[in-house]
Amino acid sequence: MKTITVALGDRSYPISIDAHALKKVGQWLVDIGLKGKVLVVSNPVIFQHYGQQLLTALHKAGFDAQFCLVPAGERYKTLKTVERIYEYCVQYRLERRSTIIALGGGVIGDMAGFAAATWLRGINFVQIPTTLLAMVDAAIGGKTGVNHRMGKNLIGAFYQPKAVIIDPQVLQTLPPREYRSGMAEVIKYGVIWEPQLFTLLEEQSRLSHYRYLPPETLTQILYFSCQTKATIVSQDERESGLRALLNYGHTIGHAIETVTQYRRYTHGEAVALGMIAAGDIAVQLGWWSETEQQRQKALITKVKLPIQLAPDVDIEAIKNALNWDKKVEGGTVRFILPKAIGRAEITDQVSAELIHQALIRLKGQ
Amino acid sequence: MKTITVALGDRSYPISIDAHALKKVGQWLVDIGLKGKVLVVSNPVIFQHYGQQLLTALHKAGFDAQFCLVPAGERYKTLKTVERIYEYCVQYRLERRSTIIALGGGVIGDMAGFAAATWLRGINFVQIPTTLLAMVDAAIGGKTGVNHRMGKNLIGAFYQPKAVIIDPQVLQTLPPREYRSGMAEVIKYGVIWEPQLFTLLEEQSRLSHYRYLPPETLTQILYFSCQTKATIVSQDERESGLRALLNYGHTIGHAIETVTQYRRYTHGEAVALGMIAAGDIAVQLGWWSETEQQRQKALITKVKLPIQLAPDVDIEAIKNALNWDKKVEGGTVRFILPKAIGRAEITDQVSAELIHQALIRLKGQ
Repeated sequence: MKTITVALGDRSYPISIDAHALKKVGQWLVDIGLKGKVLVVSNPVIFQHYGQQLLTALHKAGFDAQFCLVPAGERYKTLKTVERIYEYCVQYRLERRSTIIALGGGVIGDMAGFAAATWLRGINFVQIPTTLLAMVDAAIGGKTGVNHRMGKNLIGAFYQPKAVIIDPQVLQTLPPREYRSGMAEVIKYGVIWEPQLFTLLEEQSRLSHYRYLPPETLTQILYFSCQTKATIVSQDERESGLRALLNYGHTIGHAIETVTQYRRYTHGEAVALGMIAAGDIAVQLGWWSETEQQRQKALITKVKLPIQLAPDVDIEAIKNALNWDKKVEGGTVRFILPKAIGRAEITDQVSAELIHQALIRLKGQ
Repeated sequence: MKTITVALGDRSYPISIDAHALKKVGQWLVDIGLKGKVLVVSNPVIFQHYGQQLLTALHKAGFDAQFCLVPAGERYKTLKTVERIYEYCVQYRLERRSTIIALGGGVIGDMAGFAAATWLRGINFVQIPTTLLAMVDAAIGGKTGVNHRMGKNLIGAFYQPKAVIIDPQVLQTLPPREYRSGMAEVIKYGVIWEPQLFTLLEEQSRLSHYRYLPPETLTQILYFSCQTKATIVSQDERESGLRALLNYGHTIGHAIETVTQYRRYTHGEAVALGMIAAGDIAVQLGWWSETEQQRQKALITKVKLPIQLAPDVDIEAIKNALNWDKKVEGGTVRFILPKAIGRAEITDQVSAELIHQALIRLKGQ
């Protein structure tokens, strides 16, 4: 087992990575002082795979565990679905010392976390992420929330879990495209923060499927990724500075998701494209070398993530989406640009012309 | 002006009490670093009295201030009403650095605070309480939230404001019964914590209406009360220990509210009855003297709050309500009992018989 501590004073918590975590989770939760009632929030597919195993482990450790299933998918990430979770909180009479466990991907974690943050003004919360993206990103850092008709994640809370428990074995049931999507964030951590992770990824002959990775390598990749996220959020819990680094690849990535209405590309695919574009801009500015950009491109290619934007996606629409974000953020388009493998910086000094050229090249024109 | 600091590390904030606070509030908010967009959340009646004055002060200080009116009353304290506030957040494009101001009583403060706690995962929040109860209690301590069909305040967050601004002059439009209700909490602070406050109240010939109190005396009463609440919540932000003292009079008070369906007695009236009963139990246990109990009773009488439970209220129903609370809290009925004027303690060692006798005497039988 590998353990990472997210250091946030009296809100610190462990991230535990273990190939048999689902069997051990009951005792672990006892060890960190939890007891009594537990409500597992999950979606039907994940619960069918792992729900019974988790409930058994919890019951064995003496917990009074119940579960609540909510539909999967971003379009169900609403206050309405959270209200369904509240109904279960009422039904099982969850108390202040009770615990909500999120068993699922980012959407489940965000909603269950928001329910835990707001039921009785905050009860215990534990994340058991089941997608690669949730393991290395969404489950760490305390962001919880739901979407509003007018935008994603407009309603939410910063609320730290008591523990994040990662069982890499659950990745075997993850759809391959979702696995690859999560790998985009892993590569991101290599570029912005952790050169050892980048090198480890480069050393693997194949990266595009879970089964190509030896278990200990996968664990090491998860470890480096979680460690990076944990370090950054520890230093900037409420996203006022350093945490912006995590948006590497997300400026253009988010614009691509918007203009393709979140349907054409997964989040990771859009971020991969955004990293290619950001790397390109960094090369143009002389911030990093063509060699490093090629190394990034090679990794993204190895994961079988896209490096080229589909020809029919409208560049003007992407630029408009960037400008809309700019207005919301208050004035400037902010980019995270790499300076070396393992180091990136925030800038608002990227000209419209440079962005335009990078987008043209992203389409391979 | 009198200022109290609620000391909570990097979440510390001032409570400012000033007879012309509403005129000065714009500059004060600039002084604590706020700027940009402000959404004032209020109810129609309060806004009619004080809304324009507040907006003018905000505009003069350079704020882009808008307002949003929601219905008054506990039954509108729901997630549905908070969703209406979110609609205004969307419409005025509130950003992370924007501010929500609650101008109203406890219900407005709770809902506006919850909206501020959850919009974009938390924006700036300022309380301008307009009822005595909100000034000395609800606005201080960071409790925000809404009711659920199954119970009061089941959904919420601990979220500290950036400032609490109290203008005693707004009490002149408060209905007298609401003023007296707030005085119950003031007396409570005298009994559990601040003997100087208790004595100050005893020194006044009349207490039952705002107009009987000289402005400087009223300010001093508000100061002692806010100082007490601030000290207690500073030491126990999340209600794990000391904050329980604030429940003095609330154990039986809450049970009385429940069995009379929140219609017959105001919160303060029920708390007054609860304090009489708790004081009685303390006398029986030898914790404090009959003389002190009589002093408490004299103050409550002077405010024209009830000291005797109406004969048709069923004692068995009150006991059942206490036992239901017990189950929720996990095992025991906890009482806060006075040991002297200015000092109280928590105990779960009150026998059912003692409670029964105290209730019988509360009905004057």
